[in-house]
Amino acid sequence: MTSTTEKGRALSEELNPGMEATLEARYGHLVPGMAEGIVDFAYGRQYARPGLPLRDRYIATIAALTAQGGQTAPQLKVNIAGGRKAGLTREEIGEVIWQMALYGGFPAAINGLNAALEVFAAEDAEDEE
Amino acid sequence: MTSTTEKGRALSEELNPGMEATLEARYGHLVPGMAEGIVDFAYGRQYARPGLPLRDRYIATIAALTAQGGQTAPQLKVNIAGGRKAGLTREEIGEVIWQMALYGGFPAAINGLNAALEVFAAEDAEDEE
Amino acid sequence: MTSTTEKGRALSEELNPGMEATLEARYGHLVPGMAEGIVDFAYGRQYARPGLPLRDRYIATIAALTAQGGQTAPQLKVNIAGGRKAGLTREEIGEVIWQMALYGGFPAAINGLNAALEVFAAEDAEDEE
Amino acid sequence: MTSTTEKGRALSEELNPGMEATLEARYGHLVPGMAEGIVDFAYGRQYARPGLPLRDRYIATIAALTAQGGQTAPQLKVNIAGGRKAGLTREEIGEVIWQMALYGGFPAAINGLNAALEVFAAEDAEDEE
Amino acid sequence: MTSTTEKGRALSEELNPGMEATLEARYGHLVPGMAEGIVDFAYGRQYARPGLPLRDRYIATIAALTAQGGQTAPQLKVNIAGGRKAGLTREEIGEVIWQMALYGGFPAAINGLNAALEVFAAEDAEDEE
Amino acid sequence: MTSTTEKGRALSEELNPGMEATLEARYGHLVPGMAEGIVDFAYGRQYARPGLPLRDRYIATIAALTAQGGQTAPQLKVNIAGGRKAGLTREEIGEVIWQMALYGGFPAAINGLNAALEVFAAEDAEDEE
Repeated sequence: MTSTTEKGRALSEELNPGMEATLEARYGHLVPGMAEGIVDFAYGRQYARPGLPLRDRYIATIAALTAQGGQTAPQLKVNIAGGRKAGLTREEIGEVIWQMALYGGFPAAINGLNAALEVFAAEDAEDEE
Repeated sequence: MTSTTEKGRALSEELNPGMEATLEARYGHLVPGMAEGIVDFAYGRQYARPGLPLRDRYIATIAALTAQGGQTAPQLKVNIAGGRKAGLTREEIGEVIWQMALYGGFPAAINGLNAALEVFAAEDAEDEE
Repeated sequence: MTSTTEKGRALSEELNPGMEATLEARYGHLVPGMAEGIVDFAYGRQYARPGLPLRDRYIATIAALTAQGGQTAPQLKVNIAGGRKAGLTREEIGEVIWQMALYGGFPAAINGLNAALEVFAAEDAEDEE
Repeated sequence: MTSTTEKGRALSEELNPGMEATLEARYGHLVPGMAEGIVDFAYGRQYARPGLPLRDRYIATIAALTAQGGQTAPQLKVNIAGGRKAGLTREEIGEVIWQMALYGGFPAAINGLNAALEVFAAEDAEDEE
Repeated sequence: MTSTTEKGRALSEELNPGMEATLEARYGHLVPGMAEGIVDFAYGRQYARPGLPLRDRYIATIAALTAQGGQTAPQLKVNIAGGRKAGLTREEIGEVIWQMALYGGFPAAINGLNAALEVFAAEDAEDEE
Repeated sequence: MTSTTEKGRALSEELNPGMEATLEARYGHLVPGMAEGIVDFAYGRQYARPGLPLRDRYIATIAALTAQGGQTAPQLKVNIAGGRKAGLTREEIGEVIWQMALYGGFPAAINGLNAALEVFAAEDAEDEE
């Protein structure tokens, strides 16, 4: 039986190649084992769970990070990009974010849309290479 | 062309029958027109929009309200019930809420699960009638 | 020259008679001096300041507590009552709170309106005595 | 009878000339109709309401955005500028923001004062042109 | 080598006897494996870590939950009780909570003190049995 | 008997030399007396209190600011630096911050670790001079 750490490692390498090594290099000297904790809990015990498809998981995360306000803007952008890879269209992501005007307020929703536009611009730049 | 107010009114009567009248009776003397504002913006200009199905909209709202913490517990319960009517299974709702441990913290996610259990218990009680 | 503690004490006795003694009795054994700290900073160094009238100060506080969500509902009710004594009409308070739908989200604003209705109901009950 | 959209459009053009067109250009391809939704709800169904003067509405918004913390700093600056146009003095704005030390904490209030100083510096630069 | 799940299970049984079984009974049918995830991550990969003693860990948690506001009041009370078992005096807990007036605002700090008083009253009631 | 203002002034000059003068110069024209209010309440009536040592006070503040999210990043960095002067090791600070993944979410904790790395890098740069 695959452990949650193994399942998490496989998924994080698929979704964010090199993430665990990057986290370990950046934080491992200060907080030993933190990278493995993220791989096990956030990936193995959350995103890799079978009960909800990845596309839906990204809807949930994009919504929550938008409603919480712009302090997690870097992570919101990472998850918007992840949502795109999981099959969300740009318009679907726009709808999720704008709906958060109802729960996080209009400024939070607009800041979320700005994060999305940055991610989509980066996609366009990549496509042109 | 149907106005957003008309579209919103139709959807709110379908999702929450009698809501506009209840809001108007409760708050209309204090904040005139507030009920129509909710029907137009929250329903006509958000939930009735074609770009994202209702099921996905409820995933987003349940996620955001969970991550924001228990202060909006009444509204979280209403949206969990709405998500059930839109086709989310109990397990899918549980997954969305538990995933919010990553973004709103473990207490917020557990409080969200408690809200869900209350909604599901009410469903069971209704089924027994 | 009156100290901020003296100015604060005078104003808190005017706005919330007996508050300092109540705080001291309730928390003073656990956090010595905390009651005087509230009297000095919150009243003497904030509410008693001349640069903004009390009525406007209550608009600000009612708005902030509403937008922050229902976790400070007891304090929101105290400040709604304070705003009424400072001259805000019920309708003005309703407008301030409902405007917070834009910044704290619709659930936070509705929970704020519910707090206001409780305060106004208590006023009506007092008037009938 | 003027619709809320018409009232909102008139007020937003007065307070933020060109805003609707800018929003539509920036977000309209991603979230169709979002600009009109802001004009109708935020302006027509909130700021244009007769029950509370604009000056007081800006006190409420500046307070809420300060207390919520610096994630909405761009919007706080826009509303500080709006409050100035509605007749708030710099000192009144400073008092509203500093009072939020009581509700959003000292860091949030200081970050709000920093936003105000930036707006006032921009005013001074304009005056010198 | 003891796994984080084993370390976490040992610590959670010491700090909160029966917690894993209670969580599994309450949520396990809805979110399978969630109880083990809490035991592994929250206990094995956080509270059981050697780099900071339990007493200091409870200072951190009590501070954060207080500053975040009363939505996590049940969890705040659990952690205040945990802090007491880890050696914090009532006065030290009072100081941590009251200091949060600076970061979460005065209402959040007062609500935190109220949670502490409830925990201490429960201690006194136990002592009298 | 030393007043809280005098105690606060002594401690703030020890922990943050020149802070009161800097605050007064920056904000005093806009919000007269605000600097003294910070010295009296935040230092004299909080950090200078005898019931909890400075080291523990910094654990509490670092935890709360991390959990609240990155909007108070400047103040988090100041308090991490203060915690170092009060005797916290880098690893202890890392543990406090990473533990906040449980209460403020994983993004907030990672953003807090990034703030800590910036402070420690500045320390290293100073040591090399």
